[in-house]
Amino acid sequence: MAELDTLAVNTVRCLCVDAVEQAESGHPGTPMGIAPVAYTLWQKFLRFDPADPIWPNRDRFVLSEGHASTLLWSLLHLTGVRAVDPDYEVLGRPAVTLDDLKTFRQLDSRCPGHPEYRWTSGVETTTGPLGQGVATSVGMALAGRWLAARYNQPGFSLFDFDVYALAGDGCMMEGVASEAASLAGHHRLANLCWIYDSNRITIEGHTDITFTEDVAARFLAYGWNVTTVADANDLAAVERALHSFRAETERPTLIVVHSHIGYGSPVEDSPEAHGSPLGPDGVRAAKRFFGMPEDQDFYVPDGVREHFAQGIGARGAELHASWERLFEGYRAAWPAFAKETELIQRRELPDGWDQLLPDFPPDPKGLATRDSSGKVLNALAQRLPWLIGGSADLAPSTKTLLTFGGAGSFQPDSPLGRNLHLGVREHASAAVTNGMALVKLRPYWSGFLIFSDYAKAAIRLSALMEIPAIHIFTHDSIGVGEDGPTHQPVEQLAGLRAMPGLLVFRPADAGEVVETWRAVARLHHEPAALVLSRQKLPTLDRSVLGPASGVAHGAYVLADAPSGAPQVILLATGSEVHLALSAREELAADGIGARVVSMPCWELFDRQPREYRDQVLPPSVKARVGIEQASTFGWDRYVGDRGTVIGMNTYGASAPLKQLLTRFGFTPERVARAARELVEAGPS
Amino acid sequence: MAELDTLAVNTVRCLCVDAVEQAESGHPGTPMGIAPVAYTLWQKFLRFDPADPIWPNRDRFVLSEGHASTLLWSLLHLTGVRAVDPDYEVLGRPAVTLDDLKTFRQLDSRCPGHPEYRWTSGVETTTGPLGQGVATSVGMALAGRWLAARYNQPGFSLFDFDVYALAGDGCMMEGVASEAASLAGHHRLANLCWIYDSNRITIEGHTDITFTEDVAARFLAYGWNVTTVADANDLAAVERALHSFRAETERPTLIVVHSHIGYGSPVEDSPEAHGSPLGPDGVRAAKRFFGMPEDQDFYVPDGVREHFAQGIGARGAELHASWERLFEGYRAAWPAFAKETELIQRRELPDGWDQLLPDFPPDPKGLATRDSSGKVLNALAQRLPWLIGGSADLAPSTKTLLTFGGAGSFQPDSPLGRNLHLGVREHASAAVTNGMALVKLRPYWSGFLIFSDYAKAAIRLSALMEIPAIHIFTHDSIGVGEDGPTHQPVEQLAGLRAMPGLLVFRPADAGEVVETWRAVARLHHEPAALVLSRQKLPTLDRSVLGPASGVAHGAYVLADAPSGAPQVILLATGSEVHLALSAREELAADGIGARVVSMPCWELFDRQPREYRDQVLPPSVKARVGIEQASTFGWDRYVGDRGTVIGMNTYGASAPLKQLLTRFGFTPERVARAARELVEAGPS
Repeated sequence: MAELDTLAVNTVRCLCVDAVEQAESGHPGTPMGIAPVAYTLWQKFLRFDPADPIWPNRDRFVLSEGHASTLLWSLLHLTGVRAVDPDYEVLGRPAVTLDDLKTFRQLDSRCPGHPEYRWTSGVETTTGPLGQGVATSVGMALAGRWLAARYNQPGFSLFDFDVYALAGDGCMMEGVASEAASLAGHHRLANLCWIYDSNRITIEGHTDITFTEDVAARFLAYGWNVTTVADANDLAAVERALHSFRAETERPTLIVVHSHIGYGSPVEDSPEAHGSPLGPDGVRAAKRFFGMPEDQDFYVPDGVREHFAQGIGARGAELHASWERLFEGYRAAWPAFAKETELIQRRELPDGWDQLLPDFPPDPKGLATRDSSGKVLNALAQRLPWLIGGSADLAPSTKTLLTFGGAGSFQPDSPLGRNLHLGVREHASAAVTNGMALVKLRPYWSGFLIFSDYAKAAIRLSALMEIPAIHIFTHDSIGVGEDGPTHQPVEQLAGLRAMPGLLVFRPADAGEVVETWRAVARLHHEPAALVLSRQKLPTLDRSVLGPASGVAHGAYVLADAPSGAPQVILLATGSEVHLALSAREELAADGIGARVVSMPCWELFDRQPREYRDQVLPPSVKARVGIEQASTFGWDRYVGDRGTVIGMNTYGASAPLKQLLTRFGFTPERVARAARELVEAGPS
Repeated sequence: MAELDTLAVNTVRCLCVDAVEQAESGHPGTPMGIAPVAYTLWQKFLRFDPADPIWPNRDRFVLSEGHASTLLWSLLHLTGVRAVDPDYEVLGRPAVTLDDLKTFRQLDSRCPGHPEYRWTSGVETTTGPLGQGVATSVGMALAGRWLAARYNQPGFSLFDFDVYALAGDGCMMEGVASEAASLAGHHRLANLCWIYDSNRITIEGHTDITFTEDVAARFLAYGWNVTTVADANDLAAVERALHSFRAETERPTLIVVHSHIGYGSPVEDSPEAHGSPLGPDGVRAAKRFFGMPEDQDFYVPDGVREHFAQGIGARGAELHASWERLFEGYRAAWPAFAKETELIQRRELPDGWDQLLPDFPPDPKGLATRDSSGKVLNALAQRLPWLIGGSADLAPSTKTLLTFGGAGSFQPDSPLGRNLHLGVREHASAAVTNGMALVKLRPYWSGFLIFSDYAKAAIRLSALMEIPAIHIFTHDSIGVGEDGPTHQPVEQLAGLRAMPGLLVFRPADAGEVVETWRAVARLHHEPAALVLSRQKLPTLDRSVLGPASGVAHGAYVLADAPSGAPQVILLATGSEVHLALSAREELAADGIGARVVSMPCWELFDRQPREYRDQVLPPSVKARVGIEQASTFGWDRYVGDRGTVIGMNTYGASAPLKQLLTRFGFTPERVARAARELVEAGPS
C-alpha cells in the first residue's frame, strides 16, 4: 500500500512536470514539493465524490496557490472527476482527460494556467491572485456553519463539510489572508483547515529576504490550532496532522508543512523551480529521481487510477450515497427545509420572495437610498432565508443590519444569525462573500464606496467567476460631506463600471432601490454593486414620471419634454437625477424642452436592443448633458461628441454638502446653463 | 507640573469636543480617550520644531486613526506650529488658529475632517482610510534608515529621526497594516513606534463581536517589541512605554494603550462616542468631568500655550538649532553629500541626472517595455542616488532590480542597499512607497498591473497627496498569455486613468520608455503609473516616425497619411501602437491614408492647448479607431461618436499570446477592416 501511495504521488508530480514542459510555461516546482500532502488529503480525507463534484455536502478543496494548477488538473484526472455545469448538472464526461492535460495553458483547454471556477469542474473557486483562495475559504466555512445551523436536525447531519485550502508563502504574506485568518479565528471555524506549503522560496529568492515573521505564532495569536509537518514527504506525519484537524472542535487549523520547491529536480529549493519549465534535462533527472520512466510523458502507471478509485472514489461514493439516503429521510421529515436546500443548490428564489417588498409613496423630503435599501433588504431577507451578510464595521451607516425578529448576529455560539460582523476588513469581507456565494447562499457585504478600493481584487473575482455576490456601497459621492476627500469617492464608479461582468446600480430614489433589489435578487451568474447615497433623496412621484421598473432596462425616460420632442437630454444617475429634474423645470421656464433619463445601470442599458436605446437616447438629439458626482471618465459614450458632462475631475473637499454642491457646480442653474448653451449652439 | 500636564490634556480634549460640536459633525470619542498619550508624546518626546515643521530630521507623527483629526488640529494650534508650503518653505503664519479650529469641517478650513497632507502643515501624511497611516509610517522609517546609512558620518548624525504612528482598532484589523507590520519586523525598524489606541469600540460595537485575536502576540510574531499601558490616563506609564521604545535598538515597538472612547462623557465606552457630536448636555457633562468651564467654548486656559512652548517648543527649537549647527559643519566636511540632502528636500534633480539614459537603436525584434524600463531605471538610478525601490516579490519579472555596482539589497544589515524586497504585499508596497516619498526620496515599487487592484487605496493616496511616488506595473494586458484571466488586466487601465492626479504612462517602445522616465523623473507633485509589456515590442525607427519626445505631450503623431491629410486616425497605446502601424500599411496598400497617433499618457494630452490637440486629432477626421488590449471604457472621448474601439469587453483567457490576439481580434486585418468600414461609411 505504501508503495502505491508513493507511486501515486510521483505520478502526480510527473504529470505536473510534463504538462508544464509541454506548455513551455507554468509552475512545476510547487506541485513537486507539495504533491504528497495534496495526495494524502484527497486520497484519505477529502469527502468528495468524483462522480458528483457538486454534491452539496462535499468537503471543499481550495488551491490558494493557484499557480500550482497542474496539481489540481492531475488530481482531477487521476480521480476521474466528472464534468459538470458547476452550478446545476453533472454532465458525465471526465472533467480532465489526459488530452486536456496535454493542452495545459492552450486556448480553450480545460486545464488553464490557473484554476477557473465554472470552467473546469472540481475547481471550487478561481485562484491565482495570492491570498484570495484562503480568504474565500473562510466564507465557505462560514456558509457551512450557517447551513448546519439552519438545516441539520436530530439524526440529520445534513451539512458537516470541511473546507481545506492549500496556500504558499505568498498567500501568507497577503493582507487579505491576515484579515480572513483573524475573522476565522474569531468564529472558531473548526471546519476550516489551511495547509501552509512552506517552501520558503518566492520569486525574488529565499523568504529570508523579506518574510521572517513567525507564522505559526501569528496564527496562534489569531486563535488557531497550529500543527507542523517537518517534511512534506512524510506521509504518516501528514496524516497525523490532518487527523489533528479533524479532532479539533474549537478552532480553525493551520498545518505548516515544510516542503521543498522543485523537489527531486536539479533546481530543488531555488526560485528557478517556481515559474519555468524544468527543461528536458531537468525533467529526465526528476523522473529518474522518482523512479519513473524517463522517456514517457504523461505516464500513468498501471494501478494508479485504480488506487484512487479504491480510495477517494470508493469513500466518496459511499459517503455521497449515504448522504442521499439521509436526505430522502430528511425530505420526509422536514419537507420545507429540504425544499429550501434544493432551491439553494439551483440558485432559485422561494415562492413569494418579493411579497414584502415595500412601496414607497412619493415624498419630496424622501430618504437616503442607503435607508430605502436597508428597508428593502430587510423585506427581502424575511422571505429569502439564505440571504445573509454583514458589513465591514459600518452596518449602522450602510443600513444593512437585518433587524426583523430572529435575524440576530452570526457568532460562534449563534451560527443561525443572519448578520455577520466582518470587522474593518473590507478585502476579506468581499472574499468571504465570494466564498459564501460559492456555497450558494445569497450573500452581501457592505461598506463605503470609497473602500471598494480595498476590496477591488475580490470584487473582480466575483465577476470573473460569475457568481451572484452582492457588494453594497453607500456614501457614494461628495455627498459624504464633512469627512472630506479621503472618504469621497470620485473614480470608484468608473473603476467598477469598467469591470466586465459586474452590474453597477446607482438608484435615484426609493422606487429605483426596490427595482434594483428586484433585479439583483434574480441574478444567477452576475455579481452586483449597489451604489447608494448617504444623504436624503426625494421619493419621486411615479404617477407623473416614468416607472421605476425602468431600472430593469438600465436606463429609461423619467421625464420628457412637454412636446415629446426633446431639444436636450439630461442624463444622470442617483442623487443627480433630482438635479436633472430641477434643471428640466428651469429649462421649461425658458421654453426649452428637456428629457431626463435616469441611468441606474449602464451595463443593463448597454444590453438592450438598439431600438430601445435609440428610443431613450434618440441619435438625433445631440445636445446632451451627463450629470454625476463622480469622475466624468466613461460618460462620453452616452453624451457623445456634442454633449457635455458635469462631474468631478478633482478630488472633493471637507465641508457640509451644500457648500460642496456649489463649489463643484452641482446646481440646477449650472446644469440648465450647460443645456441651454448646447441647445443654442445648435447642431455643429 | 503634573497639574499643568492634566490641564493641557483636558484643554486638548475640550477643544476637540468643541470643534466637533461646532461642526455638528466629527469624531469626539477617540481624541477624548487618547489625548493623554498624544500629549505626552508631543510634549515630552517628539523631536519637532513648531517653528519649522519641515525640518528634515524631525520625528514624524502619523495620525493613522485620521478620524481623530481634531486631536492633531488642537496640538498644532496649542504648540503654535507654523504654516509651510509642505515641501519647501516656512510661511510664518500659524498652521492652525483658534478660528481655524472653529471652522472645523467647513469648506476651505485648515481643519478638514481628516488630516490632509499639503493642506495643513504638521500633517505628515493624509489619513482616514484605515491602515494607510501605519503602513505609510513603515516607508518613512525605511527612508530614515536609508538616509542615515548614506549621509551620516562619524560625528555627524544627520538623520536619526523616529517615526510614530497612532492607530486604532480599525487600523489593526486592516490587511495593509498586517503586511506593513510584517515588513517592519523583518527590517528591525527600531526607529518605528506604533501606538495602538485600544479602546475596543468600533462602529458596530465592542470589538468582541469580530476582533478577538491577541494583537500583542501577533506583533511579537512579526518580531516587534511589544509593551502595554493599562490606562491611557496614566501619564507616567505612557512615559515609561515611550522610553522603552527609545531604548529598543533592534525591533520596532508596539505600545498597546488601553483607553476609553469618549472618556469623561456620558457615552464613554460606547459606539455612540465614535462618530457624532456629544450634544450640548454631553459637552457640558464632559467639561464638568474635566474641571473645565462648562460654558466656555474653545477655551484655552492661561498657561497652557506657554506650557507647550516650554516643552515641545523649547526642546524642538534647541534640537533644530543644534542640528543646523551640525549641518553647517557637515556642509564643510561633506559638501557633496550636503548638497544632495538639500536637493532631496527641494525635490530637485542632480546635475547630469539624465546623462546615462540609453538610446535604443531601431530594432524590429525589439524588447519588452519592462526590459527597456529596467535599463532606463538603472541608468537613472546611477545618477539619482535617492531613487530607490523594490518589488512585491516580482523584481525578476518586472525588471526593476538595480544591478549596477553598489546597488545591493536593502536589508537590516545593509541599509545602504537600493533594492527593497517588499514581499508578496502589494498594498503595503504602495503605502511604503508613499512613506518614502513623504520623506522626499524618489521611491518606486513594482508589480504586475493586475495586482494594482490590491494596492488601489494606497495609489489613490499618492495622487490625493500629490507626491511623486512611482508605481511600476508590467504584464499589462492579455499579453501576459498563459497565466490567463486572473493575471490579465482588462479594466485596470481605466480605473487608474479615472483617478485624478495620477499620470498613467503606457509607452509603445523603448524610445517612449526613455521619454516616459524623463517625464517621470521631473515630477514634483504627481505620482505616476508606468504600464509596461511582458512581451517584446519593436523599437521604432524614429528617423521615419514621429519623435518619442512626443511622450511629453501625452499623445503625438507617430506616422501620418502619405498625403498629410488622413482619412482615418488609428489611436493606440503600448503594444497596440505596433498593430496600428501594421494596419496603416495595409490601408496604404488599399489607398487609404491613415494617421497613427501614439497616446502614452492621456492625462498629459488632455492638458495640452486645444490647438495642439486639434493638430494631433483634427476634429474634421471623424473616422477614428482606438486600439488597446484593455477595457474600451473611456476611449469614446478620443474616438468620438463615429469612431470605434477595438479593445477587451470580457476577461481574457489562458493561452499563448498569438492565440489570444486572434481570439480577441488584435490583428492588423481587423484594425484595417474597422478603419476601412469607417472611411467607406463616410461622414454621417
